[in-house]
Amino acid sequence: MNNVVSGIDIGGTITKIGLIDKNGKCISKDSFRTNEANNFNDFINNISETIKGLISKNTNLLAIGIGAPNANYKKGTIDSPANLKWDGKLKLVKKLKKYFKIPIRLSNDANCAASGEMLYGNAKNFRDFILITLGTGLGGGIVSNGELVQGFDGFAGELGHLSIFDGGRYTGLGVKGGLEAYVSATGLKRTIMYMLSKYTDDSVFRKVPFNDLHGEDITKAAEKNDPIAKYAYKYTGKILGKSLANFVSFLQPEAIILTGGLANSGKWILEPTKKYFEENLLPFYRNKVKILESGMEEKDAAILGAAALAWK
Amino acid sequence: MNNVVSGIDIGGTITKIGLIDKNGKCISKDSFRTNEANNFNDFINNISETIKGLISKNTNLLAIGIGAPNANYKKGTIDSPANLKWDGKLKLVKKLKKYFKIPIRLSNDANCAASGEMLYGNAKNFRDFILITLGTGLGGGIVSNGELVQGFDGFAGELGHLSIFDGGRYTGLGVKGGLEAYVSATGLKRTIMYMLSKYTDDSVFRKVPFNDLHGEDITKAAEKNDPIAKYAYKYTGKILGKSLANFVSFLQPEAIILTGGLANSGKWILEPTKKYFEENLLPFYRNKVKILESGMEEKDAAILGAAALAWK
Repeated sequence: MNNVVSGIDIGGTITKIGLIDKNGKCISKDSFRTNEANNFNDFINNISETIKGLISKNTNLLAIGIGAPNANYKKGTIDSPANLKWDGKLKLVKKLKKYFKIPIRLSNDANCAASGEMLYGNAKNFRDFILITLGTGLGGGIVSNGELVQGFDGFAGELGHLSIFDGGRYTGLGVKGGLEAYVSATGLKRTIMYMLSKYTDDSVFRKVPFNDLHGEDITKAAEKNDPIAKYAYKYTGKILGKSLANFVSFLQPEAIILTGGLANSGKWILEPTKKYFEENLLPFYRNKVKILESGMEEKDAAILGAAALAWK
Repeated sequence: MNNVVSGIDIGGTITKIGLIDKNGKCISKDSFRTNEANNFNDFINNISETIKGLISKNTNLLAIGIGAPNANYKKGTIDSPANLKWDGKLKLVKKLKKYFKIPIRLSNDANCAASGEMLYGNAKNFRDFILITLGTGLGGGIVSNGELVQGFDGFAGELGHLSIFDGGRYTGLGVKGGLEAYVSATGLKRTIMYMLSKYTDDSVFRKVPFNDLHGEDITKAAEKNDPIAKYAYKYTGKILGKSLANFVSFLQPEAIILTGGLANSGKWILEPTKKYFEENLLPFYRNKVKILESGMEEKDAAILGAAALAWK
């Protein structure tokens, strides 16, 4: 028999499901449109049917791991997710347990990614590290003493909402000066606007409306020496570097792993981040804490992370 | 036989040693002047002699716990302590092991205090909490999943050195805008100076030089309605409250316990702290996280905390 777990990535558009073995090999996978179900019970049924379709005669399903926005590990619920069409506290684990009498674990994307890096990626040897997701927002998956830090109620690691500037930019949750308003794919776009307001340099972005800005275009512009793009990356990296230095005073991780869209800008974000990180570290932390990129293939990273949560 | 551990509190002036049973009862205790030893080996010998003097026929010493400034739990060392007369990496645990063939654990004051609150004080039922010491500086003892967060190298929880303001006050380690430059007994004195610079109100402190300022006098002045003292507490509590709200986004503790000199100001510091704490919490954290004072008697708190580390 082939022992596997199922890793499930619930996104606003697509729900991806895979069967994964202990070595991180994806045996089979499938996906469906998240919102094609009329109600949440139908959605649970779609998950169940998809998993059953993936299981073959020789497969022994041991556990299920699920990554979802606003997921609460301790309660097994998804709480008022902004990008799903069902509202309130969705009792995902409890409902799915009716179909599968095996352990089912649910957590948010950042915690799944941290679990994935521990089992399959760049954090195999770390017992203390922080994973940062730099997508639409900024999320944190914190590992201390080899365990995910969930907080007493399952909502630790909301690093994007840390207030870093008095009276600064607002986040979606109304936090003034919230970190993700500066450091995220969206934050970078906002910083392009700020740099267009601050400087008079010519830039390709003087012709582009905010809603048409894309991260890849900002990287391309920086590579073509666009001054506004370069100012924006330096500003973002400076804030990220200083913030990460603060995180070290908190938890003294062995490494900080950066993932997600903004991390894919490579040197444009990494170089200023590393520079201001080291400059702002306390003397006894310097040159000891690694800043790393993800060690997982982006394509299957989300379902592998969810699977890692299940293997735990 | 009476099973006990020894709790040792190494301070810049006095080293206190007690024998403590599992219930937190101090069976016997003694102390000596820390710097009366000529060298570090003599100091270790003084510790050993003092412990041996406390042990009676019916006592079974199981372990030793030690609290000291700049202590490193993972390495068992005290690293370049500013307020002891011996310099360098002091191999305290290794040297003391020559006298006692039992487990010996060493950590900093804040981690000892957190251990003490878990075993004997106000954190008996908490698996996720943060203890803050508000003395000369600001220290943090972080507990997650029921375990002390030590960091990969033993130096987590340096919360006093978190940079909270760009270009703000310097800490002793040169951190610009470091939290403890504002929130600590010393920070409060600095804030009295700042308020004297900012406002024109009359105040008892217009006649007192900085070096003669004492925390208790600031509390007394606030009770007599001194405007400068009241501004200073409000300013300090606002910064502490906002910072604690950020700590919740990080770890989502069930409680934050405040100890040390500044915490003894009672309502003067607690009221503004709690107000700005709740105001700055993310909506889903509100009215869930307790801010508590220490549950231990101040007199023996340090040796009880060290003993709790040993019982762990």
